[in-house]
Amino acid sequence: MASTIIFPNAAHVIQLYLQHKEIVIIADARTNGFCLATACKYIPALQDARIITIPAGEENKNLLSAEWIWMQMQSLHVHKDYVIVNLGGGTVTDIGGFCASTFMRGIPFINIPSTLLAMNDAAFGGKTGINFMDTKNTIGTFANAEYVFIHPDFLNTLSPKQIANGAAESIKHALIHDKKLWELYKNATDFTHFTNLENIQQSIAIKNYFVQLDPLDVNERQSLNFGHSIGHAIESISLNSNNILLHGEAILLGMLAELQLSETIYNCPAIVRKDAEALKNRLYPTVKFTFSKSEILEKLLFDKKNTDTINFSLLKNIAAPMVKTKVSKEQVLQALSIFDA
Amino acid sequence: MASTIIFPNAAHVIQLYLQHKEIVIIADARTNGFCLATACKYIPALQDARIITIPAGEENKNLLSAEWIWMQMQSLHVHKDYVIVNLGGGTVTDIGGFCASTFMRGIPFINIPSTLLAMNDAAFGGKTGINFMDTKNTIGTFANAEYVFIHPDFLNTLSPKQIANGAAESIKHALIHDKKLWELYKNATDFTHFTNLENIQQSIAIKNYFVQLDPLDVNERQSLNFGHSIGHAIESISLNSNNILLHGEAILLGMLAELQLSETIYNCPAIVRKDAEALKNRLYPTVKFTFSKSEILEKLLFDKKNTDTINFSLLKNIAAPMVKTKVSKEQVLQALSIFDA
Repeated sequence: MASTIIFPNAAHVIQLYLQHKEIVIIADARTNGFCLATACKYIPALQDARIITIPAGEENKNLLSAEWIWMQMQSLHVHKDYVIVNLGGGTVTDIGGFCASTFMRGIPFINIPSTLLAMNDAAFGGKTGINFMDTKNTIGTFANAEYVFIHPDFLNTLSPKQIANGAAESIKHALIHDKKLWELYKNATDFTHFTNLENIQQSIAIKNYFVQLDPLDVNERQSLNFGHSIGHAIESISLNSNNILLHGEAILLGMLAELQLSETIYNCPAIVRKDAEALKNRLYPTVKFTFSKSEILEKLLFDKKNTDTINFSLLKNIAAPMVKTKVSKEQVLQALSIFDA
Repeated sequence: MASTIIFPNAAHVIQLYLQHKEIVIIADARTNGFCLATACKYIPALQDARIITIPAGEENKNLLSAEWIWMQMQSLHVHKDYVIVNLGGGTVTDIGGFCASTFMRGIPFINIPSTLLAMNDAAFGGKTGINFMDTKNTIGTFANAEYVFIHPDFLNTLSPKQIANGAAESIKHALIHDKKLWELYKNATDFTHFTNLENIQQSIAIKNYFVQLDPLDVNERQSLNFGHSIGHAIESISLNSNNILLHGEAILLGMLAELQLSETIYNCPAIVRKDAEALKNRLYPTVKFTFSKSEILEKLLFDKKNTDTINFSLLKNIAAPMVKTKVSKEQVLQALSIFDA
């Protein structure tokens, strides 16, 4: 069953669900301060909860952190009448959801995303996971949060870089499904549009549309992977380079390359890619592709979304996604040449 | 969706499913010899499969072995078009099912149980898991094998102790659901009845009846826990004693104590417990309760099937199970006194 997404004016729904329940909050070193106070303001039932804290950062979304969380859950005698509340960015909601869904074969959990990226993507849709042996989300489950609480207040302390990180997924959602939203975003000169509640709601609605069509990600949902095949490869390679990119930054570069592929393979209008490039240059001027194309290609071949051939989600046009597109290695290399100075 | 159980005369169904697929077998040091040869005889598609071997024994059903399996799966580039085949006892099917169900959020798997215990119980019903911090199956998922292949040939090399181990679950199934089968078993003077295909099929049908009524184990399925609340506690305590009991041996003792509770709480006829005690003395003469009652009680309180009170699955009579019965600590201690010499 899909998660119920709760916006600010319905916080009492979560309060009612949680009151009289035993609660354990999973947070990271960044979110157990300001974000916790904000969450408690809207959902007072969280005030007396026990807290499991993990180190912040995607590099800690690993088996060691999962083991730590399970140990704490065991020590706190968590059982099936408990509720786990994941308070944080995608790292926390992904690993917290994974640990909750596998502890005693499934403890109910709630996600409270504290970043724009997690609000737009990780916090709902039923995918949980941890990274393993340098590959993203290799170990995970399909498990839905009971509720996801979305509140723009959590964005107040985010750095501009973190807002930009999350906005990349908003841009993706507009490109794959909403011409009007793309018209709005493509002319943006700052991130104001991306952080207002109405646009966050639209972005969430687009992801939810694809998730509900195809919860197990075997068909239409793969539209959401647009930009992510090349984007994930860029992200992985960047982590071991001196040009470390955030997820959204890498995905933005991935979208540019995959718009080039979309042009080559589906005749997607060149103006779409040009508008996207202009947007990138305006809003993400410091994000650069500085990686070896052959390394990106090699990483792609091992990416979990691929089987023996490289499988892409591309665009025929704005709001016209095409999944399961076979792309040759040569076509990938050619698309990456848009980054040649 | 529930697993399809395949008996010897339908082995070709699995062969058809597996041919042309990439296969990875998970086995332990005991099953990658004789059992593998037997499996290949009936399902030739297994002949060219890659094999991941884990150390044998319940004590290795832990996170370290799971990590080892995931690493091997990653190194073999396992992906969603692969099939994992778990060949072994409950340790292998539980951990193999867990690793398959969490790798890339779910690779399909087949179970080929090689012990009577796994045929009767672990290999089907959708529960996977590993032990964690001295507690059984703390980490796990609900995930069904695509197919479960049952063949009595695998029992040919089992020791009498291992047959006895599995027969305890057959006895439990008869007690909770089948008067006629109980009539047959209660007079048994050896294990012949327990290993013939027809009786294995009946035993599987009984478990499946409860699983399908209640797949997520929130109500009727808990009937299958009869004997297991006290049994699991005995098993855990025994592992750190000089009287190590196998799962079935511990569950048999658990059933005797829980028949006493059933008598006290539900007026279950005394003759049922007396028949069960006589059966135990005939078929399991060396199995003895030598543990501290208070240690058993303490372990029970932390058993994953319990919340704040101790929750038992008992019998009103043969084939009349009663789930979610609250039992006091005093009643547990009193029931355990049946073991006083």
